[in-house]
Amino acid sequence: MERKNSNVMKEIVSALNGADTVRIITHASMDGDAFGSSAALCHILRGLGKRAEILLEDEIPGNLRFLDRNYCVRESGLPEEPDLCVALDCGALYRFEKRVESYQKGRNTINIDHHEGNPCFGALNWVEPDAPATGLLVFLLIRAAGWEIDAECGEALYAALATDTGNFQYESTNKECLLAAAELCDSGMDRVKVATEIYQNCRPEQIAIEAIAVERMEYLCGGWASLSCVTQEMLRETGALMSETERIVERLRGVRGVELAVLIKEEPDRVKCSLRSKHYVDVAAIAASLGGGGHKRAAGCTMRCGLEEAAARVRAAIEKEFADEGRDR
Amino acid sequence: MERKNSNVMKEIVSALNGADTVRIITHASMDGDAFGSSAALCHILRGLGKRAEILLEDEIPGNLRFLDRNYCVRESGLPEEPDLCVALDCGALYRFEKRVESYQKGRNTINIDHHEGNPCFGALNWVEPDAPATGLLVFLLIRAAGWEIDAECGEALYAALATDTGNFQYESTNKECLLAAAELCDSGMDRVKVATEIYQNCRPEQIAIEAIAVERMEYLCGGWASLSCVTQEMLRETGALMSETERIVERLRGVRGVELAVLIKEEPDRVKCSLRSKHYVDVAAIAASLGGGGHKRAAGCTMRCGLEEAAARVRAAIEKEFADEGRDR
Repeated sequence: MERKNSNVMKEIVSALNGADTVRIITHASMDGDAFGSSAALCHILRGLGKRAEILLEDEIPGNLRFLDRNYCVRESGLPEEPDLCVALDCGALYRFEKRVESYQKGRNTINIDHHEGNPCFGALNWVEPDAPATGLLVFLLIRAAGWEIDAECGEALYAALATDTGNFQYESTNKECLLAAAELCDSGMDRVKVATEIYQNCRPEQIAIEAIAVERMEYLCGGWASLSCVTQEMLRETGALMSETERIVERLRGVRGVELAVLIKEEPDRVKCSLRSKHYVDVAAIAASLGGGGHKRAAGCTMRCGLEEAAARVRAAIEKEFADEGRDR
Repeated sequence: MERKNSNVMKEIVSALNGADTVRIITHASMDGDAFGSSAALCHILRGLGKRAEILLEDEIPGNLRFLDRNYCVRESGLPEEPDLCVALDCGALYRFEKRVESYQKGRNTINIDHHEGNPCFGALNWVEPDAPATGLLVFLLIRAAGWEIDAECGEALYAALATDTGNFQYESTNKECLLAAAELCDSGMDRVKVATEIYQNCRPEQIAIEAIAVERMEYLCGGWASLSCVTQEMLRETGALMSETERIVERLRGVRGVELAVLIKEEPDRVKCSLRSKHYVDVAAIAASLGGGGHKRAAGCTMRCGLEEAAARVRAAIEKEFADEGRDR
């Protein structure tokens, strides 16, 4: 497959080949694509005899821990200025705000990502907003370099592809992605383990908070939008962690007639908001109007205010979008 | 791809080519594979100028109706003895009990299926228990015949593959299946429409009954098994249909530590039971002990008794399995 970005891919392969010490950084609140693509690259680089690490600022979600083979550190074990720092799946510097300095200390910096609006903050930037997952870019990179994809690498890449495409359901899924998934079957990976660990591995507490949040869902704009909240009290009641609320917004979107789904999450010091659309609403634009960003059908924002105020701002944004949409149609 | 069953595939292509009137039958309580593979074959046969129909005995589930293009009849519009009757995705005659006579009236009968234990009830039988979906067999058949897969056919086949593999998550998913899915992207199909219609198209009533059934889930054998019921009263309370309870058993299986999940469904005149396992329990064997059948990780049975008695029998079967499993380990 010849790609428009094949030159930068070659430069990245060359930079990776030439480096002895590589620090990998991905965004905070890691998802399967963030951690899967990082684990895959770290595994490959160590297999090539390099000193590679994934530098973290927060926890690995419970359902992704099976991918970790001592790749991760909280304090870097590399020289302060490693040969190379690679940001994976980071749409902007604020997505890894506590590690920006560590990233910028690299003698060379690479930025591989698929988020719309990525400002190309690296020295070498490979940004493909049309790619369904950063994991696909890492897969193409590894293949272009001729490095071998073993079972561990295959599982990490498959996890990245599967999770960021909602198991090949989202609009971003394309033929290239399905072919990559098929090819990864040859790596000797245990695909069932990946699916089971990621999707059939919820603590009962997660099941409980999902049920409550879905039960309390409200419909806005005559059923055109759905909205629910996760509060600190709900977390206390159920014993669930905030990282276990990720799937709720998908459930909210899954209702017939709902175009726009929003989950508002009350954190101790701020309010986060996840937005999803089904067919046509550009939620990246709505998120941007609230200070965030993301993809057209999946985006998010963070508000430094209380839950009530955040909810009011989100409701206003939904109603504005509905009114604008009505005018356009 | 050369297949062990390539001879029977050729015979089936030849039989289809030689027939002018074709009746397609799939199992009652249709799922995406049943209806998707039937719709794909009916579409292809009509495109070849044949008189083809899908003969039904019950409703098309709401989330699959988008695949129907007037393929379906309840009273056959074909001669009483059509040239060919094709059973798709039917593991046994009892899976289409009200239409067995109509099937057997065919001058020739074909049976294409992927259920373990299919007794090969057709004149021509192509049964591959390892195939992830009957839709994959229909895809291979169409390709072997050299018939063109257009967008409508592609959507029906994609729906079949995606639903019967739990979006490519289940153990049965293999490289061939992912390659087929990738190839279907070339048909011009609207893959997003398929995913949205099937998965993001639940009536609020379905969302409600799912939440209640998950909330009432109980753990058996120290969390090794999970069990819940759908009663007629729950259907009345929520306004949901029994066909809208299909996803619940997957939710029950999704809990960490649960190996075996069971959903018991109270119908007016009988009790149905869906069984799923995660790693190793052979639920086809458990279902068989209760008079049913299916796959190793997904099976079912029907019991002609009341809910209480059915639940007692199911609990006993679960506890026996757990005891046997403990002894084996």
